[in-house]
Amino acid sequence: MQQHVFTIAKVCKEFGVEEAIICPGSRSAPLVYAFTQIAGINCRSVVDERSAGFVALGMAQQSKRPVVLICTSGTALLNFFPAVAEAFYQKVPLLILSADRPPELLNQQDGQMIMQKNVFGKHVNASHELLCFDEGKVDYALTERIVLGALYETIFSAGKGPVHINVPLREPLYPKDIKPNIPRLHQFKDLGNAPIAMPSGKLDELKDAWLKAQRKLVIVGLGPEDKSLGLALNKLVNQSDVVILADIVSNQLESSNIKNFDALVQYADAEILKNLEPDLIISIGGPLVSKSLKNWLKTCKPEWHFRIATEINTINTYQNLTEFIRAVPVDFLNAFIAITRFNKPSSKQYSGLWKIYSDKTQEIQNEYLKNIVWSEPYAIDFLLKSIHGPAQIQLANSGSIRFVSWLANVPADISVFGNRGTSGIEGSVSTAIGAALINPEETVVLICGDLSLLYDRNAFWQNELPQNLKIVLLNNFGGRIFEWIDGPSSQPDYLEFFTTPHNRNIEFLTAEFRIPHYICKSVNEMTEKLASFLSPDTGLAIMELQFEYKENLEAIRLFKSLQIINQ
Amino acid sequence: MQQHVFTIAKVCKEFGVEEAIICPGSRSAPLVYAFTQIAGINCRSVVDERSAGFVALGMAQQSKRPVVLICTSGTALLNFFPAVAEAFYQKVPLLILSADRPPELLNQQDGQMIMQKNVFGKHVNASHELLCFDEGKVDYALTERIVLGALYETIFSAGKGPVHINVPLREPLYPKDIKPNIPRLHQFKDLGNAPIAMPSGKLDELKDAWLKAQRKLVIVGLGPEDKSLGLALNKLVNQSDVVILADIVSNQLESSNIKNFDALVQYADAEILKNLEPDLIISIGGPLVSKSLKNWLKTCKPEWHFRIATEINTINTYQNLTEFIRAVPVDFLNAFIAITRFNKPSSKQYSGLWKIYSDKTQEIQNEYLKNIVWSEPYAIDFLLKSIHGPAQIQLANSGSIRFVSWLANVPADISVFGNRGTSGIEGSVSTAIGAALINPEETVVLICGDLSLLYDRNAFWQNELPQNLKIVLLNNFGGRIFEWIDGPSSQPDYLEFFTTPHNRNIEFLTAEFRIPHYICKSVNEMTEKLASFLSPDTGLAIMELQFEYKENLEAIRLFKSLQIINQ
Repeated sequence: MQQHVFTIAKVCKEFGVEEAIICPGSRSAPLVYAFTQIAGINCRSVVDERSAGFVALGMAQQSKRPVVLICTSGTALLNFFPAVAEAFYQKVPLLILSADRPPELLNQQDGQMIMQKNVFGKHVNASHELLCFDEGKVDYALTERIVLGALYETIFSAGKGPVHINVPLREPLYPKDIKPNIPRLHQFKDLGNAPIAMPSGKLDELKDAWLKAQRKLVIVGLGPEDKSLGLALNKLVNQSDVVILADIVSNQLESSNIKNFDALVQYADAEILKNLEPDLIISIGGPLVSKSLKNWLKTCKPEWHFRIATEINTINTYQNLTEFIRAVPVDFLNAFIAITRFNKPSSKQYSGLWKIYSDKTQEIQNEYLKNIVWSEPYAIDFLLKSIHGPAQIQLANSGSIRFVSWLANVPADISVFGNRGTSGIEGSVSTAIGAALINPEETVVLICGDLSLLYDRNAFWQNELPQNLKIVLLNNFGGRIFEWIDGPSSQPDYLEFFTTPHNRNIEFLTAEFRIPHYICKSVNEMTEKLASFLSPDTGLAIMELQFEYKENLEAIRLFKSLQIINQ
Repeated sequence: MQQHVFTIAKVCKEFGVEEAIICPGSRSAPLVYAFTQIAGINCRSVVDERSAGFVALGMAQQSKRPVVLICTSGTALLNFFPAVAEAFYQKVPLLILSADRPPELLNQQDGQMIMQKNVFGKHVNASHELLCFDEGKVDYALTERIVLGALYETIFSAGKGPVHINVPLREPLYPKDIKPNIPRLHQFKDLGNAPIAMPSGKLDELKDAWLKAQRKLVIVGLGPEDKSLGLALNKLVNQSDVVILADIVSNQLESSNIKNFDALVQYADAEILKNLEPDLIISIGGPLVSKSLKNWLKTCKPEWHFRIATEINTINTYQNLTEFIRAVPVDFLNAFIAITRFNKPSSKQYSGLWKIYSDKTQEIQNEYLKNIVWSEPYAIDFLLKSIHGPAQIQLANSGSIRFVSWLANVPADISVFGNRGTSGIEGSVSTAIGAALINPEETVVLICGDLSLLYDRNAFWQNELPQNLKIVLLNNFGGRIFEWIDGPSSQPDYLEFFTTPHNRNIEFLTAEFRIPHYICKSVNEMTEKLASFLSPDTGLAIMELQFEYKENLEAIRLFKSLQIINQ
C-alpha cells in the first residue's frame, strides 16, 4: 500500500477538514484506510454516489469548510457530477478524491476505468492528478503540495467551490507494514487576495454616484450565512433612500427592509413598478430565486449598477451593469459606507414608497389566506408561522421554494437554504440530510415536493439517519408545477412528458425506513399533528400534506395573480 | 417555437430512429413536441435521468441503432453521464439531445444552466451544439447537417457509441403557428470505411505466422449479437490447433469450443497453464469479464498476437500485442480464413488438450455442485439449467456476472449481456428494463445482487413496466463481494466502508410496484416456485434467493478455490 495516502489524509486533517463521505469500493481501499483508521476525520459511508455528493454538499454548505468525498474508480465518480456542479455554482467547498487504477491501464479494456482526469471540466475550481507511485517510491512533498494547494483552492478568494484530485493507486491496496509516520510537512499558507487599493479617482466617482442617487436598491442573492455582511447591510437599511432586497436563500432576510418583494413585484401594476425603479443598484451574491424581481430588473435602466463580487467571470444578470467591482462584498461595503456616511443622505422617501406597497402586498395576501381553501400556499404559510428556532429550512426545487419566496414570512431566527446554484431536482433530500448531520442541535425542516423526494429516495440509504430532520412533503402526485406555468398547461395532448403523475404511495418509503409519517388533508389535521411532528422526541419524520388537485391548482393560480394597483 | 426542432426529429425518423426516452422538463418542450406529436417515433417518459440513460442504453444495446435521449437544461444532463460512459466503452449508439437556455445567459446567474457544451468530454464519439436561432430565422440546412452527421457518428465505422448535441432554445417554447412542413432534406450518406487492401507482403507475413503457429487462441471479448461473426468463427472452431475462448458477454459463447475457460484457468495449476500457452493469439471485441484469463494472458509471451479492431486507440490489454490490424473483425477473419484454408492445418492437438482440462473442470464443478449447500453458485447453476429460450440474460456487476462466467453453462438459445464497458453498479435494472421493452416477445432474466437492485431502484419508476422481465435477486444483504475478495476481508475494523450491509427488505419495493415476489431459501423452494415465476402469465416478477450468510461465503470460497492438477 502506497504511503502517500497518509499524507493526503494528514494534510486534510491539519487543514481543518472534519468530515469525509466515503462511497464503498475496492480501488479506494488505501484512502479509506487512511481516512477512517489514521487521520481522525469523521467518516460516513453512503452507498449511492449521487446522494453522497449532496450529503457532502449539505455538510459543507453549513460548515463553510471543505468536506472530503471519496469514491472508487470508474463511473462512481460521474455520479458526483450533479452535486459538483451545484457546489460550483453555489460556491460550496468540496474536495473530491477519486481512486483510480494505474494510468497505463487506461483505455486498454482492463477493468473498471474511465477517463477520470479533469472529468468535471470547468465545473470545478481546479483539477489535479497525483502521480501513480510504485511501492516504496512515493514523493511525499509532491503529494503534500498538490493536496494542500487543492484545499486552498476549495476556499480561495475568487469563490469557494469543488476541487477534484484524481488518485491513481497501484496494488497492493491493503495495509501491510504500515508506516503512518510520514515525513514532516512544511506547509505554506494561501492568504487570499491582499487588499489592493482602487485608484482614488475611481472611488470618488463611485462615492459621487452614491450621493447623487436618490433611489438605491441593494440586491442580495444566494449566499451562506454571513454575520459580518449582515452588520454592513444594517448600516444601510435605515437610510430612507436605500431599499435592501434579500433573496429567500440569501441568508440576509433579516437585513432586508422589504421582505415580500417577490410577491410585491409579481402583484404590482406597471405604474407602481415605474415608481419603484432605482437609479442605483448594488448587487452582491449568487442567483435570485425571485423570477419577478429578475425580470423586472432587466427592464430597469438605472444610471448606476455596481456589482461587487470576487468571481473571475463578469456577471451581468440584468444587463444594466455599469461598474464591476472585484472585492469581497462585505469589505467593500464597509469601506464604502465609511467614506459616505458623513454625507447627508438623500431625503427621498424611496424606502417609504416600497413600504407602502409591501404593506399592501401583505394585506392582500392576508386577505387571500383568510379566504382560501386548504392548498399549498395556505399550508406553507401556516407551517412558516409554526416553526421556531433554533431551526433552519431547506427548500427543494422548484414549487416549494417559490411558495416560501412569495410568502417570505420566515421567522428571524431561521436560516433558509436551497440548491439554487443549478436548481436541480436530484439532491434536496441528501443535502438536507447532510445539513442535519452536521447540525445535530438544530431542527432542519425540509420542504419538498413528491418528485424531489422520490427522485432522491436513495438519500435514506444511510447507516444512521439524522433524527433532527423534519420533512414536509407537498404531495401533488407528480411535479405538477408544469401545470401552473402557462406553456405546458396549454398542451394537454402530451402533458405526460412534462408532469410526472404517479400513484406512488410514500407509505412504502416511510415503512421501509421506519419513519413516522403524518398525513394531513386539512388545516385541522395539520394543527393537530404539527407539535408531535416537530417534537424532538419523534425524531426524523415526514409530514405529508395532501391536497385536492383542482382546488389546489385554482388556489395557486389565484395566489399568483393577486394584484395591487396604483391609486 | 423554433421550427428547426422538427428538422431534428424528422432527420432522426428518416435515419431509422424508432425509440426516444424523454425526461420531463420545461426548456425541452419544443423537442418533446416535435418527437411526441410530429415525428412518429416511440417516446417513453422516464423521470430519473440516470435511469433514463440506462433504459435507452438497454434498448440500443438490443436494436443496435441509435436511441434518442432528451432532457431539459441544467444538471439533468449530468445524470446521463454514467450511461453515456458505459455506452462509450460498450459501443452502444445513443443520440443525446439536451435542451439548453440561450448562450448569452450562461454563467450569468440566470436560471437553470450549466456549461452543457462538451460536458461528456472524451466519453462520446462526438459532441455538437446547434445555433440558438431567433424566432423565424432558422437555418434548416445547418440543423440537418449537424443532426445527420451526429447520427452517423453514433454508428460510425471506428465504433458505435454516444453522441451529444446541445440544443439551445429561445422562447417561445410552446407551439403556435406550427409549420411542420420543413424544407426538403437533401441528405448525404456516410458509407463507412472503404476497404483498403493491406499491402500483400504484410498479409503474407500474417498468413505465414498463422501456418507456422501450432497453438492458436482466439479471444472474443464483450460484443453485441453478431451472426456473421459467429459463422466466421465456426469455420475455425473445428481446427485442432485452434481454441476459441468467447467471454460470457461476447454473445459468441456458441462459437467457443471451451466454454468454461474462466473456471478452468482459475482452477488449473501452473504446469497445466504452461502447457496451454498459445503461440498465436487473435483478439477481437471488448473487455473480458474473466479475470483469470486476463491475468494469465498477461503472463503469456506468444510469438504473435494479432488484435483486429476498428478503434482509433490501440488496445494492448495483455501487453503482448505484435500486430494491430485495423479492420472490422468479421471481414478480416473471413478474408484471412479464405487465404489460409487450403493449407493443411497443424496436426497439433491444441484444442484436444484444452478439452481434457475443460472436461476435468466440468467434472470437479459437478462434484462440487452435487455436494454443496444452498448457496449462490448452486442457485445460479440451477437457474441456468432451468431457463429456456427465447430468452436473454442480463447480468449485473459484479458478483452475479462472475458466477455465470465461472459456470458458463448458458443454453445455446440464450444471449447474455452485461454492462462491462465500465462495470458500474448504477444501471443494471434500467438496462434490463430497456432490453425488455424493446424485445416484448422475449423473456429477459436479470440476475443481480441486492446492491444493484437498490441502487437503481428508480428504474421501476416507469409509466409501464415490461412484463417480460424476470429479476433473480441474489440477496446477501449488502455488496458482500468485498468479503470474498482477499483484501477487504482482512480489514474487519473498517469493513463497513467496503461492504454495505443493510437490513432493507425488498418487500417494500415489490409492494410499492405491485411486483410478484418469490422468496426462496432452499433449492426445494426454488424448484417449486420457478415455473410460476418464469411463466409469462406472472409478468414482471422478482425471485429473491436468500442464503445463510456464512454457509454461502464458505461455498463461494470453496467454489473459487477448486483445483485441477496436472498428473
